Amino acid sequence: MFSAGTFGRVCKTAICTVWRSNTRSASQRLDISGIYPPIVTPFTHGEDVDYQKLEENLQKYSKIPFRGLVVQGSNGEYPYLSSEERVEVVKRVRQALPTNMLLMAGSGCESTRATVQMTEAMAKAGADAVLVVTPCFYRGRMDSRALIQHYTQLADSSPVPVVLYSVPANTGLDLPVDAVVRLSQHPNIVGLKDSGGDITRIGLIVHKTRSQDFQVLAGSAGFLLAAYSVGAVGGVCALANVLGQQVCELERLCVSGRWDEARELQHRLIEPNTAVTRKFGVPALKAAMEWFGYHGGVCRSPLQPLSEAESQQVRQDFTSNGWL
Amino acid sequence: MFSAGTFGRVCKTAICTVWRSNTRSASQRLDISGIYPPIVTPFTHGEDVDYQKLEENLQKYSKIPFRGLVVQGSNGEYPYLSSEERVEVVKRVRQALPTNMLLMAGSGCESTRATVQMTEAMAKAGADAVLVVTPCFYRGRMDSRALIQHYTQLADSSPVPVVLYSVPANTGLDLPVDAVVRLSQHPNIVGLKDSGGDITRIGLIVHKTRSQDFQVLAGSAGFLLAAYSVGAVGGVCALANVLGQQVCELERLCVSGRWDEARELQHRLIEPNTAVTRKFGVPALKAAMEWFGYHGGVCRSPLQPLSEAESQQVRQDFTSNGWL
Amino acid sequence: MFSAGTFGRVCKTAICTVWRSNTRSASQRLDISGIYPPIVTPFTHGEDVDYQKLEENLQKYSKIPFRGLVVQGSNGEYPYLSSEERVEVVKRVRQALPTNMLLMAGSGCESTRATVQMTEAMAKAGADAVLVVTPCFYRGRMDSRALIQHYTQLADSSPVPVVLYSVPANTGLDLPVDAVVRLSQHPNIVGLKDSGGDITRIGLIVHKTRSQDFQVLAGSAGFLLAAYSVGAVGGVCALANVLGQQVCELERLCVSGRWDEARELQHRLIEPNTAVTRKFGVPALKAAMEWFGYHGGVCRSPLQPLSEAESQQVRQDFTSNGWL
Amino acid sequence: MFSAGTFGRVCKTAICTVWRSNTRSASQRLDISGIYPPIVTPFTHGEDVDYQKLEENLQKYSKIPFRGLVVQGSNGEYPYLSSEERVEVVKRVRQALPTNMLLMAGSGCESTRATVQMTEAMAKAGADAVLVVTPCFYRGRMDSRALIQHYTQLADSSPVPVVLYSVPANTGLDLPVDAVVRLSQHPNIVGLKDSGGDITRIGLIVHKTRSQDFQVLAGSAGFLLAAYSVGAVGGVCALANVLGQQVCELERLCVSGRWDEARELQHRLIEPNTAVTRKFGVPALKAAMEWFGYHGGVCRSPLQPLSEAESQQVRQDFTSNGWL
Repeated sequence: MFSAGTFGRVCKTAICTVWRSNTRSASQRLDISGIYPPIVTPFTHGEDVDYQKLEENLQKYSKIPFRGLVVQGSNGEYPYLSSEERVEVVKRVRQALPTNMLLMAGSGCESTRATVQMTEAMAKAGADAVLVVTPCFYRGRMDSRALIQHYTQLADSSPVPVVLYSVPANTGLDLPVDAVVRLSQHPNIVGLKDSGGDITRIGLIVHKTRSQDFQVLAGSAGFLLAAYSVGAVGGVCALANVLGQQVCELERLCVSGRWDEARELQHRLIEPNTAVTRKFGVPALKAAMEWFGYHGGVCRSPLQPLSEAESQQVRQDFTSNGWL
Repeated sequence: MFSAGTFGRVCKTAICTVWRSNTRSASQRLDISGIYPPIVTPFTHGEDVDYQKLEENLQKYSKIPFRGLVVQGSNGEYPYLSSEERVEVVKRVRQALPTNMLLMAGSGCESTRATVQMTEAMAKAGADAVLVVTPCFYRGRMDSRALIQHYTQLADSSPVPVVLYSVPANTGLDLPVDAVVRLSQHPNIVGLKDSGGDITRIGLIVHKTRSQDFQVLAGSAGFLLAAYSVGAVGGVCALANVLGQQVCELERLCVSGRWDEARELQHRLIEPNTAVTRKFGVPALKAAMEWFGYHGGVCRSPLQPLSEAESQQVRQDFTSNGWL
Repeated sequence: MFSAGTFGRVCKTAICTVWRSNTRSASQRLDISGIYPPIVTPFTHGEDVDYQKLEENLQKYSKIPFRGLVVQGSNGEYPYLSSEERVEVVKRVRQALPTNMLLMAGSGCESTRATVQMTEAMAKAGADAVLVVTPCFYRGRMDSRALIQHYTQLADSSPVPVVLYSVPANTGLDLPVDAVVRLSQHPNIVGLKDSGGDITRIGLIVHKTRSQDFQVLAGSAGFLLAAYSVGAVGGVCALANVLGQQVCELERLCVSGRWDEARELQHRLIEPNTAVTRKFGVPALKAAMEWFGYHGGVCRSPLQPLSEAESQQVRQDFTSNGWL
Repeated sequence: MFSAGTFGRVCKTAICTVWRSNTRSASQRLDISGIYPPIVTPFTHGEDVDYQKLEENLQKYSKIPFRGLVVQGSNGEYPYLSSEERVEVVKRVRQALPTNMLLMAGSGCESTRATVQMTEAMAKAGADAVLVVTPCFYRGRMDSRALIQHYTQLADSSPVPVVLYSVPANTGLDLPVDAVVRLSQHPNIVGLKDSGGDITRIGLIVHKTRSQDFQVLAGSAGFLLAAYSVGAVGGVCALANVLGQQVCELERLCVSGRWDEARELQHRLIEPNTAVTRKFGVPALKAAMEWFGYHGGVCRSPLQPLSEAESQQVRQDFTSNGWL
C-alpha cells in the first residue's frame, strides 16, 4: 500500500501537524505544497484591468482544490502593469479569495530596492508569500554572487516568506543550483518554482536541499508527474487556469501513488499545456480560458491576439486529447 | 498492489512471451527494454584501439544484469574511429559478449549512403540492432522532411532493427517529435534513445507513439527515474560504465514500483552522472572507470585528459554521494 | 580625393543645409549622425541617483565633439530606475547640456501604453528624440507583427522623433529586418541603433531603407569602422564615456576617408570596448571611467562591483592598447 | 591618393616581391590574399560524384580572376564524401585547374590522426594548402588547449601550409581568439578563414596577429567589404560560385580604395549571399548555379532539394538586386 505523500516530499518535522496552515513561528515554515494556477489579468477592450472579470474567475477557482493562486507570475502580464496596478490586483484577489487559499504574489523587479519595496507593498495588500523572479536584464552579470546577494537582502527584509522563481524561457537565465542551495538555508526562503523543465536539475536541487525544509514546485503542468517523481511537492501551472480540476487530479494521483493512472492523465495534458505556454504563450492561455468558461480576453499591447491559424492549432491540441 | 512493469511500458502483444528474445518475425519487434552502458573504446598510449583492454571490460560487464551494450554511442569516440575500426570493434565485442546480451551498434554517418553501408557492415559483424544518430553538419537543413527520408531509406534496407538517436548536446539538433511519430510506424524502427533530457518531450513521444510497438530509452542516468515515470522502458547510460550495478538497481526499483527507494538512489546518481557527461565528457568517464576497476585510459586526440583540478571535481562528485 | 561624407551616408535632400540643426518640418527629418556616449547614472553609496556627479560628468562631455548624449540606454541602468527617476534624470541632463547637443532619451518599457507615457514625459522633460528598446519579456511572441504595431502606435503619438533600438545581448531578440524596413517609412521614425554587431545585417538594413531618410547608428565602438564602411552614420558607444575624444577621432577619420589611420585606431579600441561591454558590462564601464577622471562609482544592486581579478583584466585591456 | 593594398593588409617583408607565387622557403609564407569560391561537388542522379560536370565548372572558373579555389569547404558536402572520394576530387581539380590558381583543400576530420593522414593524402594529390575546420563533435571539450594541440600537431607534420577554419554555424563553436593568436606563430600556419561574421572578432584577430605574417579571409561575401575595412585580405565566398566576377570586382574596389562603389556593390550582394548560405544552404547554392550556367544539381541525401516556395524565394533575392 502507498501512503499519501509517497511521492510528495514529506514534511520532516512537527510542522506537519499544522499542515497547510499559514501560521508560522521561528521554527515553522510555510508549507507551499500543492497546485496553483498563475492567474491571468483580464483587461477591458481599452486595456485597463478588468477587476469585475478577475473576480468572476476567482469565484470559479475557489471551488477547485488548489493550494492557492499565484498572482503575477509570467502569465499575469506583470511586466505590463504599473507598480500601482500590481499592488491593487493583489489586494482585489485577496479580498475575493477564500482565506484557506494561499496568495503567492510575484513581486520581482529588476533592482533589489524596487523588489524590496514591491514585496512590502504586496505583503501589506494581503500576499501570504512572494514569488520572486530572477532579475535578468544584465544577465551577463547575474552570477551566483549577484543573485545570492539580491535574494538575501530581500529575504532579510520581507514580511512574508519568499519563493525563488527561475524561468529561463523568459529571463534567459537559470538560477544556478549552488545559489539555490545556499539560499535554501535562509529562514525566510521556503522554496523554488522552477519553470525550466530540466528534470535532472530539479532532482538535484531536491537532493542538495534535503537537509533544509525547502520545497520545489514545478513551473509547468508538462512535467508535473516527472517533477513529483524526483521529489517536487506541487506545481504552478498555467494550464490550471483552464483545466484546474484535471491538474489537481494529477496531483492527487501522484501523491497517492497511483502511477499508471497518473501517467495516462499526464500524457493527455502535455500538448494542451505546451500550446498555452511555450508554443503560443499568454494569448493562447487567454483564448483557451474562454472556451472553458473563464474570462481570458485580450492581452495588453504589444502582445497580439492569436491569428486564426494559431487559434485552430491550440484548439486542436485540446480536442485531440479529449478535452474539447 | 503493483506488479512488475508498473512503470516500464508493458509489451502490448504476444511477443511478451518471447521477452528479451532476439527472434523476430513480421509481427514481432525486438524488445529493447533495459539498461545499456554505451561502452568506451580503450586506446593504447599510441592511440590505437586496445582490444585486449576492451575485452577485459566486457568480461566484467557480462556479470551485470544489463540488457545489452551500446557500441559506438557518443562515449565510444566513434567520430574518431575509421570505418574499418568501427566495424572491427563491433566484431570483437560480439565475440566477447554473452549471446543473451544485445549488441546495439552506432552506425550513424553524415550521409544516408554511408549510413546504409555502415549499418550493413555492422549487422554482418554481429550487431543485433543499430543506433543511428541524426546527421547534423548541415543542421539548418535537417528538418523533418530530410530526417524522415534519411531514416526511412535506412530502415528499408537495414538487416537489423533501427533505433533512432537524438543527442542535441553533440549534434545541435533534436529529432523533431513529428518525425519520431512518423518513423515509429516503420516496421524496422523499434525505438528511440533520447539524450536531450527534456522530460516533457519524452512523455509526449511515448504518448504519441502509444499505438505503435515503439520503445523509448533515456539517454542518461540523470533522468532515468523521471523517464520511467513518463513511460520510458530503459536507458543507455554513460554512468553504467562505472556504476553498472547501481543503474540496474535503479531500473529494478522503478520497474517494481518501489518509488521512494528509487528516488533516493536516483538522487545520488545525478552528480556523478553529470560529471562524466555534460560537465567533463568522455575524458571524465574514462578517468572514473579507472577508479572502479575498469580500463578507461586516454582518449584519442584532440580530446585531452582532464586537468588535475577537473579530475578532483569529478572525484568529489562521486565521493560526496558515497560512491568512493 | 575623398570628400567628407564618403563613408557617412550623405543626406539626400535639402535638409543637409540645416545639417545638425534640430529644426524640423513635415519634410525634414532630424539628422542624428555622429557619436553619442550612452551615459551612466552615478549613484551615491546609498544607491540614490547622484545628480551632482552626473552634472560634473556632463561638463566634461560638453567639451568633446559629440553629436549628443544618450540618456538611459542599457548603460544608464534604466531598468533599475523608477519612472520618476527616469524622467528626472532626463530633465537634469537637459539643463546641464549645451543646446547644440542632442539629448536622446531611452523611453522603452515593456508595454506599449507605458512606453507612450514615458515618451511623452521625457519629451516634456527636454528630450530631443527617444531611443526605444524592443520589449522582450514575452520574446516568443515579439514577432514582426507585434513590434511593428508597438512602434507604430508609439511613433504616431510621440512629440519627438523615435529611434529604434535593437540590443539582443540584453533582450534576447533582434528587431527583424522586415520590421525595420516597414517602420523606416513612418515619418516620425528616423533611425535605428543596432547593438547586435552583425555587420551583414547592418549593411542590409542600410540597403533596404535607402529610399527612406533613415539613419543607422552602430551600438558599439567595437564595430564602428565596419559600420561606417557599410553605410552607418554614427555610433552610440559605451566606450565614448571613457575615451570620448578617441571615438570622435575615429568618426572623423571614417567620414574624411582616411581608412588606414581609421583601421589602426579602430584596432586599438576593440579590447577596451569589449571589456566595458560584452565581457564585464556596466560595472567595468564605471570602473574605467574613474581611471579617466569621470565619476563612475557603484551600480545599483543586484549589479555587483568587479572582483579584483576582473578589474585587473579590464585595466590590462586598456594598458596593452596604450590607453593607460 | 590611395595605392592598391590600402585595405588589403600589405605584405610586410621581401616575400611581397614574389606576391602570389607559391614558392616558399623558411622565411617565406604563402600569400593567400584574394577571392576563392568554395566549390560544390556535383553529383549524378544516382548521387555519385560527377567528375565531368565538375570539370566543366572548373573551365568556367578558370576565366575569373580568382586567387584560387577551395575544394571541400562546407559547400563541397565533404562530410558526405568517403575518404577516397575526398582525395580523388582534389586530384581531379588539380588536373583541371590552371597552375597559377591556388588549390586549397579542406582536410579537416574529427580526430587529429585522421586529419594528419587526410592532409598528407591531399597534399600528394596536389593541394597547395589545406583549410582545416575545427573538430566539433565533442564541442564541450574543444577548448583552446585541445584546439592548439590539434592544429600544432597537424601543422608540424603537414607538407603544405595550413589555414585555420572557424565556421560556427556548422560546428557550433568558434576557434577562440587566444588560440588563433597562439597558432599564428607557427611557421606552417598562414591564415584563418572566419565564417562567423563577427566583424569585431575579425578586427581583433588582425590586430593581435599583426606581428606575424598571418592573413585573414572572410568566410562569406555578406561581410566582405567590412572584413576588408578591418584588415582582411580576401574571402572564401559561396556566392563566388554563382557571381564570381562580381565578388572579384568587389575585391578590386576594396583593394583600390573605391569605397563608395564598393559599398553599393556590397549591398546588392547581401541578399543573394544570405539566400545561398545561412537561409537555405547548399541546395540553394546548387540551384542558383544552374540559373547562371554552372552545374549545381542535386545534393547527396539526406540534404533535400529546395521546395518550390524556397526556390522562388532564392530567385527573388537575386532578381530584386538586379542579378536575374
